[in-house]
Amino acid sequence: MTLKTLSAKAAAALDKELMSTGAFSIDQLMELAGLSVSQAVFRVHPPSQGKRILVACGPGNNGGDGLVAARHLFHYGYMPSVYYPKQSSNELYQRLSKQLRDLEIPFVDDFLEAEKSSDHIVDAIFGFSFSGEVREPFPAVIKALEDTRRPVTSVDAPSSWSIESGPPASGPGSRFMPAFLISLTAPKPLVKHFQGRHFVGGRFVSPAIAKKYDLDIPEYQGLDQVAEVPCGSQKL
Amino acid sequence: MTLKTLSAKAAAALDKELMSTGAFSIDQLMELAGLSVSQAVFRVHPPSQGKRILVACGPGNNGGDGLVAARHLFHYGYMPSVYYPKQSSNELYQRLSKQLRDLEIPFVDDFLEAEKSSDHIVDAIFGFSFSGEVREPFPAVIKALEDTRRPVTSVDAPSSWSIESGPPASGPGSRFMPAFLISLTAPKPLVKHFQGRHFVGGRFVSPAIAKKYDLDIPEYQGLDQVAEVPCGSQKL
Repeated sequence: MTLKTLSAKAAAALDKELMSTGAFSIDQLMELAGLSVSQAVFRVHPPSQGKRILVACGPGNNGGDGLVAARHLFHYGYMPSVYYPKQSSNELYQRLSKQLRDLEIPFVDDFLEAEKSSDHIVDAIFGFSFSGEVREPFPAVIKALEDTRRPVTSVDAPSSWSIESGPPASGPGSRFMPAFLISLTAPKPLVKHFQGRHFVGGRFVSPAIAKKYDLDIPEYQGLDQVAEVPCGSQKL
Repeated sequence: MTLKTLSAKAAAALDKELMSTGAFSIDQLMELAGLSVSQAVFRVHPPSQGKRILVACGPGNNGGDGLVAARHLFHYGYMPSVYYPKQSSNELYQRLSKQLRDLEIPFVDDFLEAEKSSDHIVDAIFGFSFSGEVREPFPAVIKALEDTRRPVTSVDAPSSWSIESGPPASGPGSRFMPAFLISLTAPKPLVKHFQGRHFVGGRFVSPAIAKKYDLDIPEYQGLDQVAEVPCGSQKL
């Protein structure tokens, strides 16, 4: 069975609804999203396989999820570092960054250099609100993600991919295929083009919201905040 | 080894520090606290042993932790119900309550009646800021918690117990001994009087904070947000 997908437009509407009538705060949702991401990383790359996780964070909510994930990864015993070149003045992201600095998690300036000494990369650069244009300094980062030999876990979308139609025809990201993808709340249409292990996170979606947005709630096990799901025609 | 304890005064100072220089929001901390509580309940009482969890929530932050826990328990497959007689006008608690109503989790008016048809009770009535006076309508609830045959998990403190000195000498709570206790951030001095299984939650405490407040960070396993720890002279 393949999970239903959620368009970029529907994902934005769902987020808005969760934070208005749904009464969730963005702090809550981002905490749960980042926790999901950290659990997916732990599942595919336990600390025994290498603790140096490089988390690449973009300027928006996807980057915020990455900041939260980095914190949880630290508490699981990893040694995360964070590449966050376009730090938002948004108060929430400032606070999430401060929480990382208080753990002495390094913020690195040079992604290409940091990539060399990492064991795993989290791509939290662009999410479902990606506009189709990869702005500086991210083209070189996307290219490095294409070329790296390290496993990459993308958050919600392989960065640079169109949410609806997948990898760009040319330019940065056209050859980018992360080993792992964690879709937040629900897979986006791009998953049809993804080949790798696929997880869904967001164990807070109510049956009513799932019905309204025509989503499948995946079968989470035990206390897991993520569930592995098939991708395209793949079976688990 | 017995974990160090944190006085009520120190716990209040730590909370304040987390939310000021620590840059955590109360939404974040309550989400993580309630998640810890839900994980402890799952550990001691998996859904296969009975899904009807009655969560008794007090008027303050302890009650807020209970509201968050009830939501997570629902998503784990339990059928929680919530007793919340003194609903705060505080915006955060209002939102946490709305999240539960959207899951169609029942709010019950009669604790004594609801207790009869529950499998497990979460006591989220009073936490570390408890003043020593059990106000209405809680004396009868505390008495029911003393007398119930259902297992009870208390959040941070068995409600009515003095944070420093444990059970009151007489009156409601003097005979109250829950089967399970989850201490949030760190055990309070009352744990010396607790006989049962003891968990600690709060996997967000930085090494710097632990050092400053002279706390032990328990040995969390894997992705767990709770760790079982010995209590008093007890060994695991």
